[in-house]
Amino acid sequence: MMHQINVGEDLRERNREIADENREMLRSRGIFSLNIMSAPGAGKTSLLVRSIPLLMEKYRIAVIEGDLQTTRDAERVAALGIDVHQIQTGGVCHLDASMIHSALHQLDLDSIDILLIENVGNLVCPAEFDLGVDARVMLLSITEGDDKPKKYPLMFSESRLLILNKIDLLGMVDFDLEKARKEAKDLNPGIEILELSCRTGEGIEAWTGWIERLRSESGAY
Amino acid sequence: MMHQINVGEDLRERNREIADENREMLRSRGIFSLNIMSAPGAGKTSLLVRSIPLLMEKYRIAVIEGDLQTTRDAERVAALGIDVHQIQTGGVCHLDASMIHSALHQLDLDSIDILLIENVGNLVCPAEFDLGVDARVMLLSITEGDDKPKKYPLMFSESRLLILNKIDLLGMVDFDLEKARKEAKDLNPGIEILELSCRTGEGIEAWTGWIERLRSESGAY
Repeated sequence: MMHQINVGEDLRERNREIADENREMLRSRGIFSLNIMSAPGAGKTSLLVRSIPLLMEKYRIAVIEGDLQTTRDAERVAALGIDVHQIQTGGVCHLDASMIHSALHQLDLDSIDILLIENVGNLVCPAEFDLGVDARVMLLSITEGDDKPKKYPLMFSESRLLILNKIDLLGMVDFDLEKARKEAKDLNPGIEILELSCRTGEGIEAWTGWIERLRSESGAY
Repeated sequence: MMHQINVGEDLRERNREIADENREMLRSRGIFSLNIMSAPGAGKTSLLVRSIPLLMEKYRIAVIEGDLQTTRDAERVAALGIDVHQIQTGGVCHLDASMIHSALHQLDLDSIDILLIENVGNLVCPAEFDLGVDARVMLLSITEGDDKPKKYPLMFSESRLLILNKIDLLGMVDFDLEKARKEAKDLNPGIEILELSCRTGEGIEAWTGWIERLRSESGAY
């Protein structure tokens, strides 16, 4: 155990340095970037597929897709007609700053306004790796249960925005919205929370509006 | 990346040795054991809470609960009146054999027929760590989507049984049972598949029957 945690510290320190380089690369070109994280199947790709067409009306969008295996998510997003860079991590359960750094060198950074990064489906390790983006966003599907914030606290405390997805299933699953909101706010008083359904489209415009507001507030543009 | 993967190999080799010790400890006492894995919120604890009362009619049951933080799951299971040993992993995203080894030293092994281990909610890393049990079982909630087998292949190829949970929501989510079954069988032709709902109780007896059959087939008793 101790061995494992020490190795983690070294890796995280190196990760922080590369994340700072990524941040400089992105900021210097006025690119606003988000790291989107969730458990498997919470709806990250569906969120991108639903919202990118709205964002494309005003901005040039690029996506980096992280997956253990397969190009399934990347293909769904590329079908929208935008630049998608796929990272297959092999067995690695999270994206890190060096994977993003390599991807940035392969993207045409002068033709991007907003970069959306879809992390590997995992509520644990992705939260430990700063990728050098403007903000982290996490999705929680309400089908996962309202007890998740305190069970996976780092993910909630590191995120600027919590999206509660699949709210079309409210009433069909045991999920107490107020309990989940309160636990998330206890961990991270500044966290913002949106509720939406990628299936029905409800709430998608609040999400694209949030991106526009945060991009504008970031002041780099 | 290379550094990380090499460290992983060393850890896994050491894990295999301790897993073999655990296997010997359990087998020599006639304890049948399962390692239950899934993404966060797929219903591992609910499955235990639903099925342990049925198993207790014939067997002495103990549970090891793995969680990053909190004793929530352990409290839900302990309320059934059985021995529960809690492992809080801190930030570590999976159980490993040495954590189980320590727990085995604290349980009264002479009073256990069946040991159920609930892993940390994560579809990636838990699959890489043999704990020394008789079989691995994975839950997939149908709300996570039917594309998961090929996206998280190791979890599916290492499991003896795949449980498709939350089938009370079939028709309300986009999930193709046949597609998921076929992809799981492509990865692991020997995998068995059960469908159930921890919410309604449908299919729970097929699960407890599966445990009884596998225990009997394991021949150690």
